[in-house]
Amino acid sequence: MSIYLHDIPLSQAQSRLREALQDADLWRVLGSESIPLDESALGRVTAEPIWAEISSPHYHASAMDGFAVRAEETNGAQPSSPVTLSLVTRHLPQAQYVDTGDPLPEWANAVIPIENVESLDEHGKISSAVRGPSSIRIRAAVTPWSHVRPLGEDIVATQLVLPAGHTLRPADLGAIAASGHQTIRVARKPKVAILPTGTELVPIGSKLKAGDILEYNSLVIAAQIKSMGGEPTRYPITKDDFDSICETVLQAAQTHDLVLLNAGSSAGAEDFSSKVVEKLGQLLVHGVAVRPGHPVILGVIARSALVLGDEAIPSLLEIASGTNIPRNDGVPIIGVPGYPVSAALTVDIFVESLIAKWLGRRPHELPIEMATLTRKLVSPAGDDDYVRVAVGKVGGKLLAAPLSRGAGVITSLVQADGLALIPSGVQGMEAGEQVKVHLYRSKAEIEKTIFCIGSHDLTLDLMAQFLAEHNRRLASANVGSQGGLVALRRGEAHMAGSHLLDPQDGSYNISYIRQYMPNIPVKVIALVGRDQGLIVKQGNPKGVKSLGDLAGTSQERSVQFVNRQRGAGTRVLLDYHLNLMTIPSESIAGYSQEEYTHLGVATAVASGRADCGLGIAAAAQALDLDFIPLFQERYDLVIPKQHADDNLLAPLFDLLADSRFREAVSQLKGYDVSVMGTVILED
Amino acid sequence: MSIYLHDIPLSQAQSRLREALQDADLWRVLGSESIPLDESALGRVTAEPIWAEISSPHYHASAMDGFAVRAEETNGAQPSSPVTLSLVTRHLPQAQYVDTGDPLPEWANAVIPIENVESLDEHGKISSAVRGPSSIRIRAAVTPWSHVRPLGEDIVATQLVLPAGHTLRPADLGAIAASGHQTIRVARKPKVAILPTGTELVPIGSKLKAGDILEYNSLVIAAQIKSMGGEPTRYPITKDDFDSICETVLQAAQTHDLVLLNAGSSAGAEDFSSKVVEKLGQLLVHGVAVRPGHPVILGVIARSALVLGDEAIPSLLEIASGTNIPRNDGVPIIGVPGYPVSAALTVDIFVESLIAKWLGRRPHELPIEMATLTRKLVSPAGDDDYVRVAVGKVGGKLLAAPLSRGAGVITSLVQADGLALIPSGVQGMEAGEQVKVHLYRSKAEIEKTIFCIGSHDLTLDLMAQFLAEHNRRLASANVGSQGGLVALRRGEAHMAGSHLLDPQDGSYNISYIRQYMPNIPVKVIALVGRDQGLIVKQGNPKGVKSLGDLAGTSQERSVQFVNRQRGAGTRVLLDYHLNLMTIPSESIAGYSQEEYTHLGVATAVASGRADCGLGIAAAAQALDLDFIPLFQERYDLVIPKQHADDNLLAPLFDLLADSRFREAVSQLKGYDVSVMGTVILED
Repeated sequence: MSIYLHDIPLSQAQSRLREALQDADLWRVLGSESIPLDESALGRVTAEPIWAEISSPHYHASAMDGFAVRAEETNGAQPSSPVTLSLVTRHLPQAQYVDTGDPLPEWANAVIPIENVESLDEHGKISSAVRGPSSIRIRAAVTPWSHVRPLGEDIVATQLVLPAGHTLRPADLGAIAASGHQTIRVARKPKVAILPTGTELVPIGSKLKAGDILEYNSLVIAAQIKSMGGEPTRYPITKDDFDSICETVLQAAQTHDLVLLNAGSSAGAEDFSSKVVEKLGQLLVHGVAVRPGHPVILGVIARSALVLGDEAIPSLLEIASGTNIPRNDGVPIIGVPGYPVSAALTVDIFVESLIAKWLGRRPHELPIEMATLTRKLVSPAGDDDYVRVAVGKVGGKLLAAPLSRGAGVITSLVQADGLALIPSGVQGMEAGEQVKVHLYRSKAEIEKTIFCIGSHDLTLDLMAQFLAEHNRRLASANVGSQGGLVALRRGEAHMAGSHLLDPQDGSYNISYIRQYMPNIPVKVIALVGRDQGLIVKQGNPKGVKSLGDLAGTSQERSVQFVNRQRGAGTRVLLDYHLNLMTIPSESIAGYSQEEYTHLGVATAVASGRADCGLGIAAAAQALDLDFIPLFQERYDLVIPKQHADDNLLAPLFDLLADSRFREAVSQLKGYDVSVMGTVILED
Repeated sequence: MSIYLHDIPLSQAQSRLREALQDADLWRVLGSESIPLDESALGRVTAEPIWAEISSPHYHASAMDGFAVRAEETNGAQPSSPVTLSLVTRHLPQAQYVDTGDPLPEWANAVIPIENVESLDEHGKISSAVRGPSSIRIRAAVTPWSHVRPLGEDIVATQLVLPAGHTLRPADLGAIAASGHQTIRVARKPKVAILPTGTELVPIGSKLKAGDILEYNSLVIAAQIKSMGGEPTRYPITKDDFDSICETVLQAAQTHDLVLLNAGSSAGAEDFSSKVVEKLGQLLVHGVAVRPGHPVILGVIARSALVLGDEAIPSLLEIASGTNIPRNDGVPIIGVPGYPVSAALTVDIFVESLIAKWLGRRPHELPIEMATLTRKLVSPAGDDDYVRVAVGKVGGKLLAAPLSRGAGVITSLVQADGLALIPSGVQGMEAGEQVKVHLYRSKAEIEKTIFCIGSHDLTLDLMAQFLAEHNRRLASANVGSQGGLVALRRGEAHMAGSHLLDPQDGSYNISYIRQYMPNIPVKVIALVGRDQGLIVKQGNPKGVKSLGDLAGTSQERSVQFVNRQRGAGTRVLLDYHLNLMTIPSESIAGYSQEEYTHLGVATAVASGRADCGLGIAAAAQALDLDFIPLFQERYDLVIPKQHADDNLLAPLFDLLADSRFREAVSQLKGYDVSVMGTVILED
């Protein structure tokens, strides 16, 4: 049975896999093992209910340091008429000293704490010795079983201590020990084989040439499997060769419960995964309407194939033609897409619930909150679309700011505070709409996040590092200076970095703030003065010295420029100076080629996509490029008063006065820290 | 300097420890180590910021399978006027096939996906071969850099990939690999020595005699340390001997960053911890106003003491007299109280933040929610009082039901969904008040919790086990049948187990429901019929056969009874029959001795505290006691209509019709499952 790449809805894909595993008797706890009761049991899942073997305490225990007594004999004791109890009698004593935890004597049924007792010596005089007295005097009666931990107070033999399917926490181990066990029966860890395939793949640490792709998906997946409670095995890279892949898959299937075949799951010429699954078993699904993800393969292969060697061919053909795989012979296989974000999300979506089932535990669920989307998102109507978002709480409102949607951008997963789900059937969402977010971080962490949006500066990376030491997280999104002010007006950030030059008077930011954020009281603080200039290749091969060198008719143009996006402070600066110099923007080759960050501009130059761009010195330094300083500009932090007075931002203000931070910034090339912390405006 | 047991506020205790560690230069990341970049790095904490060594991708890569082109040469292509691009030319090709991930040829600046291309053979005819064609025809132009992943799209060399102090997750490992690293510098794991002390302690698995205490605190603490990211060492038990404890402490201090001395932290005769700390260093705190906890000891000892051997005595005396411990020589020591709940909470309160500091990560913080307290709590005004609570959401309201407050009851930690904090200064709280709860469980888990309150039955333990398989958690609190109905009236539970006999007509529950829950529509479903009878010691040594055998004047009484609490269905049943038999309750010895559960009654009999009690057969069986059946009664589930129709309870109703569940219940002695699922009442 062949099913070609054809996206089916996520829920349908999941239920096809579940049904196939039910048929193969694999939709259950895989097995159990007995392990010693020590701290290595932490995080394991109980395979059967744990019933108490013994009671705890297993005897009536004194709960205090004091004297064991018969409660009846204390009756009538009052402040004004004490009762004396003898510690030494011919028959039974009336009182006996006990430490906390000591067994209550058979004849006693209560304990009087030592601090409520007067010790008397043999002459009936008050004695200071605790162990030496011959009698005690009390001035209050006690009720039976006072200050006694009765047998079974904590655990009664035979009671249920923990159910099956419970993930063990520290206190659980104590309760299991207290109930008389020395070992625990836990679900065995599912074994997962991770097979990276691809001729272009090279191992981590290789010296790279163009076209080489670092193989780190298996590392991420292995870590995912481990955190789910499975036992991962990373296989070496297999080249794109049908037979080699078949062989490795079958070999892995012998000793694993699940095979993850990474990449080759699409429908290209070198994409063998679906054919491998078809050859070795049943292809259940090829293509799922989930984004990122799409070319996901789900199947079940027959473990017996390898054991039978060449003789297996007829039986394999039978299987491939749709015959069911015999019970106890099936191994599920998942073709995981190659882009790192797709790979990680595919494992989260399909493998987590499978391992949960195999361990008998509840699936991990991320907490879900509704958040306000900060910008419009377009999404294909047919897909369940998972968008990585930064999440922050600004003025009591939870915000979700979409990050890069590229399936190859692993840093978008690193930076993500959560996943916003745009369900299939919805074609996109507008800024300001409420979106469901699966949160990676706790609410407490999010409430300690300073949301900074606007122009990017390298100083913000340093600031993030320093703020982390003071229990604050800085999440920054780069949308340019004007974008930042607009975000502040919408109440979508705590502060914005801005370096907007007013062409009228050469001042920075204030006129823009009044225009973009009317009636919003703000505090504006200078962060740094910084050089802006031309970023050029090492040695400046085109000999660019000023903006004038960029201009020319299309015939003359030899210098390819790369610009910043509209609204960026650097773009405003460029236009200001072009205007002063009466250079028309059309005369600059590449004026319309836009990058969103300083590093983006530097990268374009470094890679040869452009000869030069306008940017900051630090970006040039970062990529070993040359820098021709042209202007100095001021970079400010714009903070609505409402947030400036908030405790959340207090560590930020401390930082601006911290000499360690100042020193660290001044190490960066092209920065002037003398203005740092100067209040430019305070409404 | 000696400070005797004298409770100081928690915040003051924490700051004394912090200041002492600052003085000893120990309030910082302890050190770092380089580890290989593999899945074992998961959960480690970065010791320094990670900057990108290389860009990712490190070349311009095709983002699709398709043809690399120069965007300029596609201009003008339209559906009606296609453009043809040659794959074979004398100079540069106009198009070249590329797989996803292939480097873009130097001359190209865009990719056209294969599905948007018509392949032509050498005669200009459409060809089906992908690799064979000599030219391609396109019917739409592309813009520069379409379907290209530009160099640095994910990571730009030199950019900050991760800050220091970051706990590594799976995707982080991928980003670190992608940015060119093979190893990571992480904070070294703080080494924590756990020293159980106490002559009465015996290891897990020992055969127990009265007075023996199973030593499992070190297991719980080791698991706590491990989950905090530390490296625990469990020492063997040390007897209560001052010199032995000193020796073990000093030995542990040589190779550990923190010493936890378990028990002996109070002020009793055998409590040596404070004296050990005074002898070996500085006692900072003895007693903290936190409950449970109280006798907590905080100190810093000098590591050099042992190294110097006997010669150390003068220097030790110096230290003991208040001289500061030299830098690099101090080791913090915490005297942890002996009761298991106090021990676990002390470690959470004092050690978590210390290990967080030593690793450079943010302290773990439990999410906090406000919840409605289901019953009154009394609390000493001076203490920060942490009360273990079960948490459930009933009718949209988050509820906190206090569990056992005994510091010895480890199962209260196992069952707890959170800790309610009654801050110092507050003397207690009334039922219905809002209390701050630190949650152990996620909101999702709590929203899947069925809150059952009322009379206890062993069937509920089995039900919990079955419901767990259907993604529901059953939290049950035992307050007796009437207590359950009152809780339902207050909206504090989803259902109540009840077996209240109406003495007027012999019916069960309905008249009580009308009385306690007027105007609340309910559904009442029979769960089981069960035997109630007398629980007696094996062999029934007192020869009890009926309730009549319990009665007598105080001279005649030889049978000691144990009763259930007022409001319990079993108590009502007893009173009903005593009334029928005209036996006055005063004639029964032990009538006023109350237990809250069937197992509590059985335990009282098993331990000899009573000769008999009225209860269910299963409780007698559980403790190997004899059972004399007297009556059969019906045990119902009472469910307000509002919850009966809720999806949360659907699996419960399925369960009542599940033959596996029925079978499991009928295995318990004294149960009749024929009534299970019968609807007794539906408003």
